[in-house]
Amino acid sequence: MAGKKIKKLRRKVAKLKAKLSAINGMHSDAQISPLAPPGGFPDLPAITGVRFAALNSGVRYKGRDDVMLAELNAGSVIAGVFTKSSTRAAPVLDCQEKLGAPASGGAAILVNAGNANAFTGSHGQASVNALTGEVARVLNIDPVRVFSSSTGVIGEPLAHDLIVSKIEELHRTLDAEGACKAANAILTTDTFPKGACATIAGDGGTMQIAGFAKGSGMIAPDMATMLVYIFTDAKISQSLLQELVSATSDSTFNCITVDSDTSTSDTVLVAATGQSAAKEISELASPAGNAFADALHGVMRDLAHQVVRDGEGATKFVEINVTGAKSDQDARCIAMSVANSPLVKTAIAGEDPNWGRIVMAVGKSGAVADRDKLSIRFGDTAVAENGWVASSYLEEAGAQYMKRQDIEIGLDLGIGTGKSVAWTCDFTKRYIEINADYRS
Amino acid sequence: MAGKKIKKLRRKVAKLKAKLSAINGMHSDAQISPLAPPGGFPDLPAITGVRFAALNSGVRYKGRDDVMLAELNAGSVIAGVFTKSSTRAAPVLDCQEKLGAPASGGAAILVNAGNANAFTGSHGQASVNALTGEVARVLNIDPVRVFSSSTGVIGEPLAHDLIVSKIEELHRTLDAEGACKAANAILTTDTFPKGACATIAGDGGTMQIAGFAKGSGMIAPDMATMLVYIFTDAKISQSLLQELVSATSDSTFNCITVDSDTSTSDTVLVAATGQSAAKEISELASPAGNAFADALHGVMRDLAHQVVRDGEGATKFVEINVTGAKSDQDARCIAMSVANSPLVKTAIAGEDPNWGRIVMAVGKSGAVADRDKLSIRFGDTAVAENGWVASSYLEEAGAQYMKRQDIEIGLDLGIGTGKSVAWTCDFTKRYIEINADYRS
Repeated sequence: MAGKKIKKLRRKVAKLKAKLSAINGMHSDAQISPLAPPGGFPDLPAITGVRFAALNSGVRYKGRDDVMLAELNAGSVIAGVFTKSSTRAAPVLDCQEKLGAPASGGAAILVNAGNANAFTGSHGQASVNALTGEVARVLNIDPVRVFSSSTGVIGEPLAHDLIVSKIEELHRTLDAEGACKAANAILTTDTFPKGACATIAGDGGTMQIAGFAKGSGMIAPDMATMLVYIFTDAKISQSLLQELVSATSDSTFNCITVDSDTSTSDTVLVAATGQSAAKEISELASPAGNAFADALHGVMRDLAHQVVRDGEGATKFVEINVTGAKSDQDARCIAMSVANSPLVKTAIAGEDPNWGRIVMAVGKSGAVADRDKLSIRFGDTAVAENGWVASSYLEEAGAQYMKRQDIEIGLDLGIGTGKSVAWTCDFTKRYIEINADYRS
Repeated sequence: MAGKKIKKLRRKVAKLKAKLSAINGMHSDAQISPLAPPGGFPDLPAITGVRFAALNSGVRYKGRDDVMLAELNAGSVIAGVFTKSSTRAAPVLDCQEKLGAPASGGAAILVNAGNANAFTGSHGQASVNALTGEVARVLNIDPVRVFSSSTGVIGEPLAHDLIVSKIEELHRTLDAEGACKAANAILTTDTFPKGACATIAGDGGTMQIAGFAKGSGMIAPDMATMLVYIFTDAKISQSLLQELVSATSDSTFNCITVDSDTSTSDTVLVAATGQSAAKEISELASPAGNAFADALHGVMRDLAHQVVRDGEGATKFVEINVTGAKSDQDARCIAMSVANSPLVKTAIAGEDPNWGRIVMAVGKSGAVADRDKLSIRFGDTAVAENGWVASSYLEEAGAQYMKRQDIEIGLDLGIGTGKSVAWTCDFTKRYIEINADYRS
């Protein structure tokens, strides 16, 4: 009898313990986002003219790489877009200045994670000078050709000496196959490294593009975004590359948001080494120019999506397609208003087909909208039309759709031809945990 | 031996059960906000010329009042401000039209909670007509003098017949002392009713102001806000009252935000019955005009603060004071950027003095800022100055300050004389729970 009771109580203890452990599990830190690409980090092709190295500097993290160096051959051109934040970090200001400088000789990109070197007064530029100066000395290139980024905590001085002392070791370990190691070294709250690549048939040979990104929180790019490094062996002028990168950022990175907060360190750098056998791309309106632009767009959109898929606490990937707006600008404004609405994002987290909140977000956007011409769909399911719920809509169909991991919300304004897209994730308790419980 | 084991296991079960119950307790619904005014709902004075009634209509809630009627004597004037949402609800559009109509005879305000009658197509206006028509018939007044509001779920048709059938009972139970009952009838996710009042010494007698509000989520007023009803016996023209209410909304309700989401139903109505013995206020630039404006400002700010103090999931009340900006508009833009930043609000929830995130929010605001002239303080503690951490600042002092329930963040831009204030709350897991787990 007593034996039976003991067994019963033991089962009860086991059950209660499992419940507690499940609850605690939700707070654990080491999980990879459920939205991460199933195949893991892609097998990036080596880009002729580019070598990578990464190691641990001890600035903040233990037991993982936190600095990466990319070395570029002589003649490489570099294009970039950056955060518009008025409190942007010292390395961002430094990169912006250097992009305009006349380019000759080799080049390099140095990135550290764990400290953003942002809002660090005059110390900030001194750190940038020390770091880029040492890279220039060791690689024997012009300091104006050394670009740098820092990501992590804002407002703490960067212990740049720790990194300066490692530049020679970085130089010694440069490796054409080192992109994956480099992609891992720049992560902060990210749960997986983000990479993408493309091969283009050029005129006289193929061209390759390989890139990687970091970003998970403080994601609401404004003409630029998080940290992104893309490399290609294409032959292309700096001005043409810059034109392409600016336009393509606008339709990729600038269409994503995780939390409406814009980083002080957002940087996209695209470097072209010109080592491909293919002829130079001398205009974008050419078969090779188009093919290269399409491929670059694909790589940038892929990386942008991966940043959203690693959104802090994300469990759903959401695409918002706006059509029929008065202008493209109005369409973007509406798409972003929906994508940034805490009430829409929490409803999606709760798998609640609460389309009334989408109506609210359209209304607050400031864009022109006629309530009685607005229609909404979830995937192929018509939800609302002509200012009210669609006659064919069943709440159960909406609820079923919301259980999906990838969700598409369509909004037609019915008043024009303007269109835009936004990509975002849901808003969960885990986001609050990550940002309330730890200093990022 | 077996007995001991059973006892031990029983203790273990009890302990584990207590842990689970504590975790479940955090999800319970019935808690009053920890930021609620300690004295509870104030003892509002009766306003001569105003009577209230409230009851349950059965539209959505059980066991609580969900409709209130306010009856106003002949000659009352009514001023209002409303949401600028382009998807605003039918009752809002109806109120806006009626405000401009010539006023004579008695007036009334009818409010229901549980259904917002928003995005309900032509059914929306039909409901408003049915409701205001029945009030006009029963009270024997012009329908153009009957104002109405609805708050609750968006996109579901309002079962207005349930309310229409109760108008006679509302009329029979009108009571000059009924403001508290009316204030309770308009709540939705609110955890406490919000009231405020003032007495002004006028010329020839005193004037009284009494008002109440609802609001907890979907709070980011844009030239108007949630639902607010204020009553006074002052003698004042509609045009003068409207001028005052519009200006005062701008420095009270328009300075608050809970979640950056703007409601489709935001409405502020201020009714003046003219029954005070005090002389008419014929211009604002007079002793009585100033006193009345000050008192009205106090009542509106008090109600605005109470809405923030009932912010969904709030555990901290936060005031953001911006000074030294290029213009007042820039200052407001910065104050709201900080007040709406999920990263700032989650840091406050976590009692983390993470001032780097405040720098980020200034940077993304779009307002003019010089990083190296920016200074930040928590209460009286200097945190950052001249673009970096203040030399006197100790992280422990910041951490200690963040433990307070009421927090003041000061931001000086150091470049002009523009100033503004914003009031907000922190951003907790409870907000996500409220909005992910339940349809609001």
